[in-house]
Amino acid sequence: MNKVTLAEKFALITEYWSPKIAGELNGQQVKLVKFKGPFVWHHHEQEDEMFYVFKGSFMMELRDKNILLEEGDFLVVPKGVEHRPNAAEEVWVMLFEPAATLNTGNTNNEFTKNELDII
Amino acid sequence: MNKVTLAEKFALITEYWSPKIAGELNGQQVKLVKFKGPFVWHHHEQEDEMFYVFKGSFMMELRDKNILLEEGDFLVVPKGVEHRPNAAEEVWVMLFEPAATLNTGNTNNEFTKNELDII
Repeated sequence: MNKVTLAEKFALITEYWSPKIAGELNGQQVKLVKFKGPFVWHHHEQEDEMFYVFKGSFMMELRDKNILLEEGDFLVVPKGVEHRPNAAEEVWVMLFEPAATLNTGNTNNEFTKNELDII
Repeated sequence: MNKVTLAEKFALITEYWSPKIAGELNGQQVKLVKFKGPFVWHHHEQEDEMFYVFKGSFMMELRDKNILLEEGDFLVVPKGVEHRPNAAEEVWVMLFEPAATLNTGNTNNEFTKNELDII
């Protein structure tokens, strides 16, 4: 059992949109990801997804509104809700979601990551 | 669907060792709690528990070692592992754990909170 220092782990991440597994509990995973630019529109059939901003900010685009997430904010996107993260500048995000969650949800494209590394 | 700004929510908490529910996803809850001083030794039979330090620091005492958790650190305490948080100064902690988790685990005492408020 060891603690995880987020700043140290994020410093190791060199690729955008590539979540790394930083912890696991109760079948859920803690994932760390750096974003920049727009992602793809998608939803998750079965999984609610939590986004916590550790550093920077980004816009969570939803079909009916946009939500600006800044450092120290979190948002839970319920299953079934279409969303698209969009970051004007690089942002460092911690995710909580079931281990089975695919980053691009119901879509498959150049952003899709089927195997995530542990960091 | 609304974002949660941790600093604003923590500002509303006036009591130590009294977790408030700030979010829910996949049967798990996000809880916010302020600590000061030593808690009670306990473990959780069924639930892994994640502690993320938003502000300040505290010592997670385990039976075989102590782990200092500082701002931006997290620790997952697996089910069955005895632990006692101990904060020399006030610390602001975000917890992630199953909704059913009792704060004092297998013990029942003056710290036990059976009903948690939503914040």
